[in-house]
Amino acid sequence: MLKGFEKESFSAEDGLQARYEVDAFHADYCAVLDENNIEQWPEFFTEDCFYRVTERENADLNLPVGLVYAEGRAMLQDRAVAIGRTQMFAPRNLLHFISNIRILAVGGGSITSVANYLLLQTLIEGPTTIHQAGRIYDKFIRSEGRLLIKERQAVYDTAIIANDLVYPI
Amino acid sequence: MLKGFEKESFSAEDGLQARYEVDAFHADYCAVLDENNIEQWPEFFTEDCFYRVTERENADLNLPVGLVYAEGRAMLQDRAVAIGRTQMFAPRNLLHFISNIRILAVGGGSITSVANYLLLQTLIEGPTTIHQAGRIYDKFIRSEGRLLIKERQAVYDTAIIANDLVYPI
Amino acid sequence: MLKGFEKESFSAEDGLQARYEVDAFHADYCAVLDENNIEQWPEFFTEDCFYRVTERENADLNLPVGLVYAEGRAMLQDRAVAIGRTQMFAPRNLLHFISNIRILAVGGGSITSVANYLLLQTLIEGPTTIHQAGRIYDKFIRSEGRLLIKERQAVYDTAIIANDLVYPI
Repeated sequence: MLKGFEKESFSAEDGLQARYEVDAFHADYCAVLDENNIEQWPEFFTEDCFYRVTERENADLNLPVGLVYAEGRAMLQDRAVAIGRTQMFAPRNLLHFISNIRILAVGGGSITSVANYLLLQTLIEGPTTIHQAGRIYDKFIRSEGRLLIKERQAVYDTAIIANDLVYPI
Repeated sequence: MLKGFEKESFSAEDGLQARYEVDAFHADYCAVLDENNIEQWPEFFTEDCFYRVTERENADLNLPVGLVYAEGRAMLQDRAVAIGRTQMFAPRNLLHFISNIRILAVGGGSITSVANYLLLQTLIEGPTTIHQAGRIYDKFIRSEGRLLIKERQAVYDTAIIANDLVYPI
Repeated sequence: MLKGFEKESFSAEDGLQARYEVDAFHADYCAVLDENNIEQWPEFFTEDCFYRVTERENADLNLPVGLVYAEGRAMLQDRAVAIGRTQMFAPRNLLHFISNIRILAVGGGSITSVANYLLLQTLIEGPTTIHQAGRIYDKFIRSEGRLLIKERQAVYDTAIIANDLVYPI
């Protein structure tokens, strides 16, 4: 378990409501990525967000390193532009599956949660294969009636990840 | 995104309720298919339904073609009979996973939604593999207290699909 | 369909509430397994629980046999100890995905449900692959404000399962 993501207590009503909101957020977020609208991706984050993609082993040892590391929405925007260009060279379809959403804390306009993700990849004219799987640890805050990610740490189980595509999780 | 499946605005209460109903619908629908009760499959559709299974590339270009194309429940019934017979020749188990349900519109007794699907296949005495993955775009109407599909478009990412089994999505 | 797991009728409110509780239960349960906290696994079961993991073919024929068969929490505790030791010899990461939850019956402090599961495995420095997939049939009872499993039957589609690891579902 990642530090800062311990389960706290909250009412059943708050849990159900948060569960619904986080679920809808993930579905919208993944739809943007899966439809290749990567330029919209940074809009799901706060201005001062923290974003990290790291291997499970690093996360277990509380090592701060990661495959991807970004502080602030501006860095995500740079990243989105870079990925948008790289994509052209190796066309493929991606499909994110989010499952096992756990609400860990609710209160004061924020929600902490973790979920499992499975990222499938389909190369043009090829079969669909598992590209990556792991867990996403999130801290959301509510802003103008919708959730935004203040912190996301994607911790992947899959040790072998093709370097030609470090696509957002 | 498929035409006619744009996201509209609705209240949080309507969204939560619709999300629950669509989720329960998918689970019941998939259970019928996964238990090989294919003769019950057309019962999830309206009399005048539209059903299509097509490749992502076709959907993106708004091409009306598809791998499977059916208008009206009667055509689905014919199809169910045909598949029921074909199945005998190549025994396998199928398992549908529905995830990332997005409610796109709610109102006037109808719900529009999209979700990701993953269809796993297990040949007798073999491993479980990914058969197909994609998205299902649905328009439901409420009839006698339950939902029925008025329109389903299954858009698959997987370009390579064994022709010996075009099983329902 | 497994005997004793027929769909009964219940109100929409009860269904939604049960759906939320079962979903949260599965997420907590899987998190314990996926984080290798196997010693906590028996705590999700009642003292007099029944637990079985069996192949789909056996379940379809109503055969009582299974790959794993346990009566009572004490047997699960023994099993947890045994697995905890075995794990050391072949390090791997596991990730459970629960989907398509169907509430089958609600009432009198108990919930009956079925869901699909997908168990992914990642060997150290290897790719992520499908280890097993199937359905979990559960009977829960409420005890001190939380759900406990009174009966779980995991029915797997995957005929080929590595004998070196019969990890809990």
